[in-house]
This record gives sequence, structure tokens and C-alpha cells, in this order.
Amino acid sequence: MTAIYPSLNIIKEAHERIKPFIHRTPVLKSSLINDLLNVEFYFKCENLQKVGAFKYRGATNAVQLLSDIEASKGVTTHSSGNHAAALSLAARKRDIPAYIVMPENAPSIKKAAVQSYGAQITYCEPTLEAREKTLDLVQQKTGATFIHPYNNFNVISGQGTAAVELLEDYPQLDAVIAPVGGGGLLSGTAIATKSINHNIKVYGAEPLNADDAYRSFKQGIIIPSENPNTIADGLLTSLGTITFQAIRDNVDDIFRTKEETIILAMRLIWERMKIIVEPSAAVPLAIVIENKDFFKNKKIGIIFSGGNVDLNQLPFH
Amino acid sequence: MTAIYPSLNIIKEAHERIKPFIHRTPVLKSSLINDLLNVEFYFKCENLQKVGAFKYRGATNAVQLLSDIEASKGVTTHSSGNHAAALSLAARKRDIPAYIVMPENAPSIKKAAVQSYGAQITYCEPTLEAREKTLDLVQQKTGATFIHPYNNFNVISGQGTAAVELLEDYPQLDAVIAPVGGGGLLSGTAIATKSINHNIKVYGAEPLNADDAYRSFKQGIIIPSENPNTIADGLLTSLGTITFQAIRDNVDDIFRTKEETIILAMRLIWERMKIIVEPSAAVPLAIVIENKDFFKNKKIGIIFSGGNVDLNQLPFH
Repeated sequence: MTAIYPSLNIIKEAHERIKPFIHRTPVLKSSLINDLLNVEFYFKCENLQKVGAFKYRGATNAVQLLSDIEASKGVTTHSSGNHAAALSLAARKRDIPAYIVMPENAPSIKKAAVQSYGAQITYCEPTLEAREKTLDLVQQKTGATFIHPYNNFNVISGQGTAAVELLEDYPQLDAVIAPVGGGGLLSGTAIATKSINHNIKVYGAEPLNADDAYRSFKQGIIIPSENPNTIADGLLTSLGTITFQAIRDNVDDIFRTKEETIILAMRLIWERMKIIVEPSAAVPLAIVIENKDFFKNKKIGIIFSGGNVDLNQLPFH
Repeated sequence: MTAIYPSLNIIKEAHERIKPFIHRTPVLKSSLINDLLNVEFYFKCENLQKVGAFKYRGATNAVQLLSDIEASKGVTTHSSGNHAAALSLAARKRDIPAYIVMPENAPSIKKAAVQSYGAQITYCEPTLEAREKTLDLVQQKTGATFIHPYNNFNVISGQGTAAVELLEDYPQLDAVIAPVGGGGLLSGTAIATKSINHNIKVYGAEPLNADDAYRSFKQGIIIPSENPNTIADGLLTSLGTITFQAIRDNVDDIFRTKEETIILAMRLIWERMKIIVEPSAAVPLAIVIENKDFFKNKKIGIIFSGGNVDLNQLPFH
């Protein structure tokens, strides 16, 4: 039987493959935030990764694994977020075209980011149906390989490499927390962490306003997001078949958090740690704030998933 | 003759002394900013230092060097900025009192920062005369030792340790640039750099709207600031006798920059590097932006001096 999701060995191979392209991001600590919550935090700063997000790991792994013939025709995806930018840069590093399908109403800052990495953008109506149809047309025309943002074996392998680095630096953690949207990061993190040391707990962190992963996890079937509405714009998507299985098998629990706590956690990180995280990246700290007693006195690794925010639209008042 | 300013050996002794207390801050790179300016940058991130600024190095060195009798009476300074917070935390780490004289109109965020480190604040009128008079009174009452924010031998020794670390990590630089206000950071940086490798150029970076260091450097006498008005609120102060001499002897040149370029450089750092720097810390990058040809193809170390900004009052529109 072929494994539906990658093993630790596959993730380690991915790590060797992508090392020449990625930053080994620092793990930062903050005695102020530790004291505030009675927790020993280890923050893996994927906001300082290239393109400002962990997504560059998975995209690079997927692009590097293409055969030369596949690669020559390029890659494509539909996304207006970090995966689009990550795939564009990963393609450029292999000197192959990237075709990005984006809703025409995507923020101009995101369009500009993707363009700056040299990708070709095809705009579509802002519906899932239009996205998929446009993507089909692009694939038919170009023969490009579709790289799904998260429900993709090679992408998940790449995302798991952040946890591998975190545990190389700090093996003695009690728990690791990652945000969960489509589940690529949480899947890779959970597989890697549990395979390295089964005693380390792995938790997913999700906004209450987009809690499809929580509900899917609890009920044992994929329940898609319905009208998710959260400031954590990287966590709007629903689990895929592969990520659902990986999370079900390897994650200990999923916690949910209120919007106010996400903004509070984000502000705490900005003010105390002097680094820029996007709202999605602040969700794991938010769940610790909302569950202080549960996490008290633990050594906790948190993956700061990304740092892409529009400085003209900050949620601070 | 006693040296008026510290030697490299003194700075190295300071480094050993403060190592248990400080963060060894990372040196970050940005291929995007490199490509934009055709420069190879090495950013020493003192914004990620404790209290969010290099000031903690000098304050810690000065506090640790006090005799037990001096220490028991505490330390004092007048400042509403990073030095006040740094001295407060440095005092707390030695378990001694810190008395901070602050203008009553100081931003509440700065008052809160100093209070959170356990210092006792004495408020005064917002004039230099009132500050100095109030400081005298505090000293008479408490016997506390005055630790000047920059015109202090031990403070300058501490500030020089950031450049020592930078050059340990990256010895092959062509130039190092630091912002200059009172000159503590630039003095320590220049002494350390020139003593380690005399071929490395050292430049000061100053806002045009507060260019007393530039004018003092060019004319060979201390010319105090007159009504400085710049967004770089850490650079409002004028050189002192010690910092003037250290800069005169060890700095190759001082460049000035417009306010717009400071904001542009600050935004570039936030958006591209995902770290928070205060306006003063962006001044060195601003002078490179304004002098592209001069700095082209060079390996340049930049000290990001601090990251303390009020998130409710950002200059981005």
C-alpha cells in the first residue's frame, strides 16, 4: 500500500533537497512573553523565510521534484496568497514558468508580490468555480503541472521541514503548535514531530470563525468551511483528503480561538519580539493565551507561519 | 594620559562582562533588498536585543561595573527613550533601584515600558533645565550613580560590542554604517571596527533635520542640535565630548538623509524583512538609498539600532 502522506524519511529527503534554496530560519525566544504566560516558548520564525512564509519550503520541494520534461512546461496554481508567491519564486529558481490564477479582486499588494517574482497571472471571477475552470484552461493551454497549495504529497513533505529544524535546535519540547487552514503545515509538522519523538504533543490552532479542521477532526469526516470570516486570512481554506488523514493520525488536538485574541497575540508578538507576523501566524499564541492553565510550565514550540501583511490595513487601534 | 574613550580591548572585556545578560542578536540578510540596491547587506538586529535596542548593552556594562557600595544606592538617568528602559532592566538584573527622570509629556507607552521594568519615575517639566535640576535632586536624595545615555566611557564600551559580534560573524565587510544621535553607538562601532580592521570604512547616518553630528564632524567642534525635528526620535540629541572625540578619530564620514527616505527605508525593512525597526534604525539604509552609486557592489554591515515604535502611530499611508 502506498502511503497517502509522507514519512519522516521523505520529509528529511525533502529537507536535503530544499536546503540550498531556503533560509534556515531562526528560533527566537522572548522572556517577556514567557513570563506573561508561564510558558517557555520557542518560536520558529517562518515569517523570516523567503517570500515571508513557510510555503516556500513546500513549493520548492514540489518544483525541484518535477522531471525535466514536466518542468519545462511550468507550474500552475490558483491562489491569491502566500502559496502563489512561493510557487512563483520556486519556479524562477528552476528557471521555469509559473502561471498563477487569481481572483480579479485580489489585493493589489498580492498581485504585485506575485508579479515581482516573474509569474504570469490569469485573472478570474472571485468564485471557486471560476478559479478551477480558469486553472483547467491554463493547464490545457500550457501543459503546466498543478501544484496544489496543501493537498499535495510533495508540498506536505516540504512544510514538514520547519519542524525538523525546530527539533534539531530544541529536541526537548513538550508540545509543538501550528496554525491550520488547508492543513499542509500542520500535517508536515505533526508527521515530523511524532516520528522524531512520539511524546511531544502536536496541536493545531484555528480561528473559531473558520473551524472546519476542528469539526472535521472531532467528527472524523471532512467538513468543509462555510463562509469563514476571520482576520487570519491564511486559514480560510478547508482540509484536503491527504491533510485530513495526516492530521487525524498524528495530531493530538485542535484548539480554537476568538478573533480578539488573535489580534492581541499578534500585537504582543510585534511589540515584544519586534518581528512582523501575519494574523494566521499569531493563532497558536492566541490559543495558549486562551488556555493558560493547560499550557502552563510547558516547553512549547510554535511555528510562526508567515509575515505578509498590508501595512496600510493593520488591526491596531 | 588616560584614554578619553575605550579601546578595543576594553570593548572586548565589556563583551565578556555582558554576555550572560544580552542576546547575541542575529545578522539577517535580504536578497530582495540586496538586488534592489546592488549591495550585499548584513543587518545586525539590535531591534531584537532585550528592551528592543542596543542600549541594553551599554547600560548593562555600566551597571555591572559599579562597585557594590555604588550599586546599593542605585542608578539614575534622564531619558524618555530606550536608554531609560535599558537602564531600568539592567538595574533590575543586578537587583538595585533605578530612578528615571522623565518629562511629564512623555508618551504613555514609554512610561509604561520603564514602569514594567520596575524603575521609579520622577516626572519633570519638558525642558533640559528641568530635567537636569530634577536629576540633581534625585541624586542628592538617593546617592544614585548617574549613567549618561551616551557620553559615558562604560556605556560606549558596551555599545561597541554589537560591532564586535557583527565582525566575528562577517569579517569581510567593506563598510559598517550606524545611526548617530548622541553618538554612543557610532563611537563604539567605529572604535571596534577600525581596531579590528582599519580597511573597513565606518560611516555615520543622520537625519538632515537633526544634523549636528554631521556639522560637528565637518567643522571639528561640537555644534549642538538646534530644534531638531525628525521622525527618527532616537537621534534628536547632540554629540557629547567623549563621543565627539571617538567619532572624529575613527569615523570616515557622516551622511545625511531626508525624512521621506527614512520612512521609505523603514517600510522596505518591515515589508521585505518582516522585522520591526524604529525610524532611527532605518537611517543607515536611507543613506544607502540616497547614495546608490557610492555604496554599489559593497559588502555593508548595518546596525539596526532598535525596534521600539508605537503601533498606533505608524508613518505608513
